[in-house]
Amino acid sequence: MAKIGIIGSQGHMGQAIAAVLGAGEHECAGGADKDGDVPALANRSDALVDFSSPAALQANLDAASAAGIPILIGTTGLADEHHAAIEAAAKHIPVLQTGNTSLGVTLLAHLVHEAAARLGDDWDVEVLEMHHRMKVDAPSGTALLLGEAAADARGIALSDQTESGRDGHTGARAKGAIGFAALRGGTVAGEHSVILAGEEERITLSHSAENRSIFARGAVRGAAWLIGREAGRYTMKDVLDL
Amino acid sequence: MAKIGIIGSQGHMGQAIAAVLGAGEHECAGGADKDGDVPALANRSDALVDFSSPAALQANLDAASAAGIPILIGTTGLADEHHAAIEAAAKHIPVLQTGNTSLGVTLLAHLVHEAAARLGDDWDVEVLEMHHRMKVDAPSGTALLLGEAAADARGIALSDQTESGRDGHTGARAKGAIGFAALRGGTVAGEHSVILAGEEERITLSHSAENRSIFARGAVRGAAWLIGREAGRYTMKDVLDL
Amino acid sequence: MAKIGIIGSQGHMGQAIAAVLGAGEHECAGGADKDGDVPALANRSDALVDFSSPAALQANLDAASAAGIPILIGTTGLADEHHAAIEAAAKHIPVLQTGNTSLGVTLLAHLVHEAAARLGDDWDVEVLEMHHRMKVDAPSGTALLLGEAAADARGIALSDQTESGRDGHTGARAKGAIGFAALRGGTVAGEHSVILAGEEERITLSHSAENRSIFARGAVRGAAWLIGREAGRYTMKDVLDL
Amino acid sequence: MAKIGIIGSQGHMGQAIAAVLGAGEHECAGGADKDGDVPALANRSDALVDFSSPAALQANLDAASAAGIPILIGTTGLADEHHAAIEAAAKHIPVLQTGNTSLGVTLLAHLVHEAAARLGDDWDVEVLEMHHRMKVDAPSGTALLLGEAAADARGIALSDQTESGRDGHTGARAKGAIGFAALRGGTVAGEHSVILAGEEERITLSHSAENRSIFARGAVRGAAWLIGREAGRYTMKDVLDL
Repeated sequence: MAKIGIIGSQGHMGQAIAAVLGAGEHECAGGADKDGDVPALANRSDALVDFSSPAALQANLDAASAAGIPILIGTTGLADEHHAAIEAAAKHIPVLQTGNTSLGVTLLAHLVHEAAARLGDDWDVEVLEMHHRMKVDAPSGTALLLGEAAADARGIALSDQTESGRDGHTGARAKGAIGFAALRGGTVAGEHSVILAGEEERITLSHSAENRSIFARGAVRGAAWLIGREAGRYTMKDVLDL
Repeated sequence: MAKIGIIGSQGHMGQAIAAVLGAGEHECAGGADKDGDVPALANRSDALVDFSSPAALQANLDAASAAGIPILIGTTGLADEHHAAIEAAAKHIPVLQTGNTSLGVTLLAHLVHEAAARLGDDWDVEVLEMHHRMKVDAPSGTALLLGEAAADARGIALSDQTESGRDGHTGARAKGAIGFAALRGGTVAGEHSVILAGEEERITLSHSAENRSIFARGAVRGAAWLIGREAGRYTMKDVLDL
Repeated sequence: MAKIGIIGSQGHMGQAIAAVLGAGEHECAGGADKDGDVPALANRSDALVDFSSPAALQANLDAASAAGIPILIGTTGLADEHHAAIEAAAKHIPVLQTGNTSLGVTLLAHLVHEAAARLGDDWDVEVLEMHHRMKVDAPSGTALLLGEAAADARGIALSDQTESGRDGHTGARAKGAIGFAALRGGTVAGEHSVILAGEEERITLSHSAENRSIFARGAVRGAAWLIGREAGRYTMKDVLDL
Repeated sequence: MAKIGIIGSQGHMGQAIAAVLGAGEHECAGGADKDGDVPALANRSDALVDFSSPAALQANLDAASAAGIPILIGTTGLADEHHAAIEAAAKHIPVLQTGNTSLGVTLLAHLVHEAAARLGDDWDVEVLEMHHRMKVDAPSGTALLLGEAAADARGIALSDQTESGRDGHTGARAKGAIGFAALRGGTVAGEHSVILAGEEERITLSHSAENRSIFARGAVRGAAWLIGREAGRYTMKDVLDL
């Protein structure tokens, strides 16, 4: 039973994390928002999760370091200077920074890497995603993350090999390309499939989220996993021992 | 046990139809190709199937009319004059003209029409298709046919409401739009899904072809169904009593 | 903007209906539970929904009749006497009684009926469902409802033709059988697919619920639809004009 | 361009392998059946594939050893004595024995092992398969192979933990169980899905075969891969470097 402190507790993710802690095996040590007292929160927590803003990152890392506790950073929009700050803090405490806290997606990316590495480029890779009707961009960040996993396994740069948004006279599929397609509709929280299509057989690797609470759940599991680790920089893959 | 004559017997579809007839409940009355004797073929057939060329259409209709037997026209690329010739022949014999002889796709289009008509446009319609890596255009003709079924049910013109090839910053989905997405890979013969996505629930209507012989099978069933009908113009929907 | 009164407002469905009314286009006229004043509730409502108990049914029908408003009955476990009471009330007011208030499932059953009626029994019908790990029986009631739709379309009795729980040496599939298979796991709210498998092609008709609120949403839509109808007994199919 | 000799060339798999060799990058060195001259075939081959019978196994291994070439054994129904004979031959030549020559299924089993090992038993594992209407047993051998991969990853015995053929009052799902469900219909060559269902998210890993030629294709690739290897006993996993 770990005590988790939430920085950015009034934001969408902060509230979702509080709900997960309210229902689950760990405990909420409290929250801090703009003008909140993060050092005090750190002192009564076993680990921190930070879904606030890049501007607050340095102070949050300092508070975790001073208290000697780990911190999970889910804040997006980080620049080089923020990554440098994370590296510096990771010399003293365990720090996990990630753009996607879902355990299922993290595992799926690993499986895609495995599959793409073994099958070779006579198996065509396609990434399909579906999200709710309000989503304004395509492909989703998670779809690109999965495509990157396949590209990395094949030693290619994804940006050189993308076939996205097929419409009209496209010509035959390019060998080695990684294709993307996006569906939008209803209230779908997020579904992703990576299809590897070979000669007369196909492998499909999919992830489906029932709602967006899985990101909060993964953040809690990640933060709890950090407790007692050595200082260093970690990723969600480490949480799954990948 | 009907005797089916094949016009265009050396083409891809002609050969597939001969194979279906060789294995099935009906009989092949023979084939005719360029410079073949279609009137003689008509005289020894109970029905004709025509997968030759628009240029041969008038002569083929004449041969069927002279023999007093029905004809199924699967030739593509027909112009207004060809449709006029079909209308004229249909005063004397049963004629079924179609761009898609699959019974499954014909039924699916009917089900999509039913679903779109009942659910209203707060359910978003998306059409997804996957085909082999050699296909050069997107969306597939069958995907468009399914989209047309949904548009028709809602009383809109498909061309005004299409969202196809989403890529980059698309903005939120337009209410009432019909979306299309295309996957390409391997040797997939053809898969189509129409998704109707509402508030927290979804209906998906799909068709999957194991190989392209289903078009030959449907052509044979359509031709056999025409035998003994009244003169007139028919579609594949009539074969399924839709 | 209709005012909907909830009988059984503290039950699982009653609470879900109140949540839907709180967020949506209609209004909650209030709730009544054991010892609650249903006649008073009826007097301030445009329609009632009843998810209480069979024992309360007669009194609830009487209250609706006295107020001259429609009632939707979602109570389960009704005996012949309850159906007789519903018939009697339906002479004076509109009454909709149903075991499944989901619009999506209602439509899917209609599509399954259409498909099974057109395709004939050389297409094999299979019903697949997946539910959360706590569900204690199989197949689900909705799976059976979908199987009934297929059996009805073919003029057979489902109970004579069921292949359920295949395990071990089963022998080849019986022609005309309707198969059932059940998956259990995680927190899946409910997914159902009806597969019609023919020679080298397949049609799959599916429904997926993101959570159980769709039943509440359908109940509200059904109750609102009843307002202003003639007296009579209705089903969810009527709401969709099926 | 390797020369592959086929033992059991008139059988179902032997003919399929000949067809793959006729169309592909390798060459058919000829075939041998009952009373055929396997040593002569071995002398003109770079590798042998054996889909004959257990009774012929020893002689086939001897012929390969005498010619100093590798052999892939796809014969089923092997007893302990046959495995001993394979072990003995594998001291002199490369031998690959397998009950399933599909590369896709081999990879899928590996991915299932990875996923089950990482996620832990609060994710429920379900194995779903669909095959054509003539299949007489359930679950399929491949489904069991996939279930074994999950059980092995968790350090349990599959036979202790199986939930198969759910029907009627089953009670809630047992924690740690591996579930199986079987669909039958049409002409489906073989589809398998392993579902890992957790709290509000799900991972699905699937394989789909368009027809049964994939087993012949995998056998050819396996035999060609053996050429030039050191003596030893191999599996299909080695071919994919798993």
